[in-house]
Amino acid sequence: MNLELMCQKASECKLIVGKMDTDDKNKVLCDAADLLVQNTDTILAENAKDIENAKTKGMETGMIDRLTLTVDRIADMAEGLREVARLSDPIGEVLSMSKRPNGLIIGKRRVALGVVGVIYESRPNVTSDAFGLCFKTGNCVILKGGSDAICSNKAIVAVLKQALIDNHVPEEALNLIESTDRETTMAFMKMKDYVDVLIPRGGAGLISNVVNNATIPVIETGVGNCHIYVDEFADLDMAVKIVNNAKTQRISVCNACESLLVHEKVAKEFLPMLQLAMLEKNVEYRADEVCGKILNSSISTVKPATEEDWGTEYLDYIISVKCVTNIDEAITHINKYNTSHSESIVTSDYDAAQKFLDEVDAACVYVNASTRFSDGNEFGFGAEIGISTQKLHARGPMGLEALTSYKYIVYGSGQIRE
Amino acid sequence: MNLELMCQKASECKLIVGKMDTDDKNKVLCDAADLLVQNTDTILAENAKDIENAKTKGMETGMIDRLTLTVDRIADMAEGLREVARLSDPIGEVLSMSKRPNGLIIGKRRVALGVVGVIYESRPNVTSDAFGLCFKTGNCVILKGGSDAICSNKAIVAVLKQALIDNHVPEEALNLIESTDRETTMAFMKMKDYVDVLIPRGGAGLISNVVNNATIPVIETGVGNCHIYVDEFADLDMAVKIVNNAKTQRISVCNACESLLVHEKVAKEFLPMLQLAMLEKNVEYRADEVCGKILNSSISTVKPATEEDWGTEYLDYIISVKCVTNIDEAITHINKYNTSHSESIVTSDYDAAQKFLDEVDAACVYVNASTRFSDGNEFGFGAEIGISTQKLHARGPMGLEALTSYKYIVYGSGQIRE
Repeated sequence: MNLELMCQKASECKLIVGKMDTDDKNKVLCDAADLLVQNTDTILAENAKDIENAKTKGMETGMIDRLTLTVDRIADMAEGLREVARLSDPIGEVLSMSKRPNGLIIGKRRVALGVVGVIYESRPNVTSDAFGLCFKTGNCVILKGGSDAICSNKAIVAVLKQALIDNHVPEEALNLIESTDRETTMAFMKMKDYVDVLIPRGGAGLISNVVNNATIPVIETGVGNCHIYVDEFADLDMAVKIVNNAKTQRISVCNACESLLVHEKVAKEFLPMLQLAMLEKNVEYRADEVCGKILNSSISTVKPATEEDWGTEYLDYIISVKCVTNIDEAITHINKYNTSHSESIVTSDYDAAQKFLDEVDAACVYVNASTRFSDGNEFGFGAEIGISTQKLHARGPMGLEALTSYKYIVYGSGQIRE
Repeated sequence: MNLELMCQKASECKLIVGKMDTDDKNKVLCDAADLLVQNTDTILAENAKDIENAKTKGMETGMIDRLTLTVDRIADMAEGLREVARLSDPIGEVLSMSKRPNGLIIGKRRVALGVVGVIYESRPNVTSDAFGLCFKTGNCVILKGGSDAICSNKAIVAVLKQALIDNHVPEEALNLIESTDRETTMAFMKMKDYVDVLIPRGGAGLISNVVNNATIPVIETGVGNCHIYVDEFADLDMAVKIVNNAKTQRISVCNACESLLVHEKVAKEFLPMLQLAMLEKNVEYRADEVCGKILNSSISTVKPATEEDWGTEYLDYIISVKCVTNIDEAITHINKYNTSHSESIVTSDYDAAQKFLDEVDAACVYVNASTRFSDGNEFGFGAEIGISTQKLHARGPMGLEALTSYKYIVYGSGQIRE
């Protein structure tokens, strides 16, 4: 279908979806979950085509793993939709209401954003996740998935659309851009007349492409160059556990730790403890001069850190390591190189903890905890559309509320302005 | 000064301004107010140069009026700063805090946005207004005013900076881009590494230029094609007062009414009443066929409405008029042609009022009141940085809170993710 027409039809449909009752929306989500499971074979067959194409193109194993669906993964997608159905519906909530001196009653009512565009890469499960979250919040959604997953995405969208049709909801509530060329993506980002917000989900390249080219308002997500600062007054055993967890529990995620700052007074004791704890993970260290001398290069790879290392999100078993002389140096370094995602201090000093919370400029600032908790589920939101690294609209893990706006409803009795 | 260096210095300064105590910020604002009054002569002398240049260039009278400062207008600017000082400081408020099952305590703390860019036209009073609101909310601000007001803006900024210097606040908290060429403005809009949000204030051309070219997140403001729908069950006397007020009380503002929709059952009675009430204002009507026949063209200018009229923000003594057969037609028309600003229904019917509030997609939706109330002061915010017509971040009149973001502060005791 013509892109502009698709966007226009989605926009025309947003009023209908925006005012649907919660029970009706939940029915669609649960039906969609059942249909996903029932159509597992069809989806897997289409997914196999994508995998075949990816292998032919020589895609690397990790990427193929992300692209691959299984019976269990489809069951997880279905369960994800059921979980979203169980969450309470934020739409319609009146956030405040008050009476003005002239008698006007002004209320602030939570409403859907309208049409949400999601641009993502090769994970086909994002297709049903994004639909579930957007639909629950009364939004129409237009998806632009990676070309590598096009067969899988078409199959999943066909199933989800069936749930809409079965429940007499216009199928334009969910749209997949099937064209995979770059021109279409560029044109989509400028459909400002019809699309209210654009959420890119993926690597740094995808996100900066969207930020630089979209005229639709964007919620920037995802890139995380997260630091842990081990303070002079840290419990070093706790610090080892936290850094090890944040670095190695899952390396490919945006809330993993990429850089370690350690106070000069504890570096000599702490770094060997950490190196030992992370030994079996074969972590590579990119260290400044001081830390390079402390780290034992006979048991781990230790390389000198370059300026580029301080700004790098490795998403790998690599960590940059720097020695600092005080907390101010740590905070300045973090504010210079971080991506405003998640930062943590390990300390038992009250003032240091408060100072770090106050002065580090990031979506999530931790004391004595792993950065890996920056996640909608871990924060108690029940679901997550992404982690915002911008300050506008939503910051940090985004739950259902991030997919809403508000409008002022004003009850008058003939008031005019003097 | 080099533009990028200016933006970088502002960014480096944001931590200092962001953590200033409320009393210290208020002291700066009150000092700045006093200094504005004390330097009235200097500011007026510089303003005279701008006016002289504008006259030489043949600027129209209305525009010259906007550009002109007087002793009273400077006193108003000073009083505006004192009023902002009196408002409560939103920074530091903890919006929520809760304990997770694993013991993590997660709080959501309101923080400054960081660096706010404001691009505006020829009103020099915006210079001090924008500084006051941004500074109160702990933000650094970079101003890009219209070239016509450059001498006035330089003089005002010099005075405001003196208040910063006197109070030992880095003067980079306030910056004026003095270069008036288009290339500088374009480059400014792309200073994403240093500027957190861009707020354009001005006409439709300025706003669309910013939206189309900025890579910094934008809060779109201002353009208002506002409608009033006079329902079948309207109190017609009330409707006359409301439409007259919304159309003629002040024509040049974004919350003025530009389009009237009237139910076919009351059009014949209502339109002559309205025409009579607005007679002395010489309002011109751009009417559809039905209304064109009802309106008396011997006492007012009545022209046939074109398709273009339905989408036009006149900012003049002109109103488009259309007859509708039911409320659904009115809502559909509004949602098609409005700019999501302010819309009002006049009715005594409960269902019609609720339906209008539910289904009209706009920042402010009114029942039985003039659209002219869409304003930060009228809404009780005490001040206003603009009226947002987008759904992201802030919608409708924006008070101090619209100039803030939040960050999650997480208190742990060694938690790691399993």
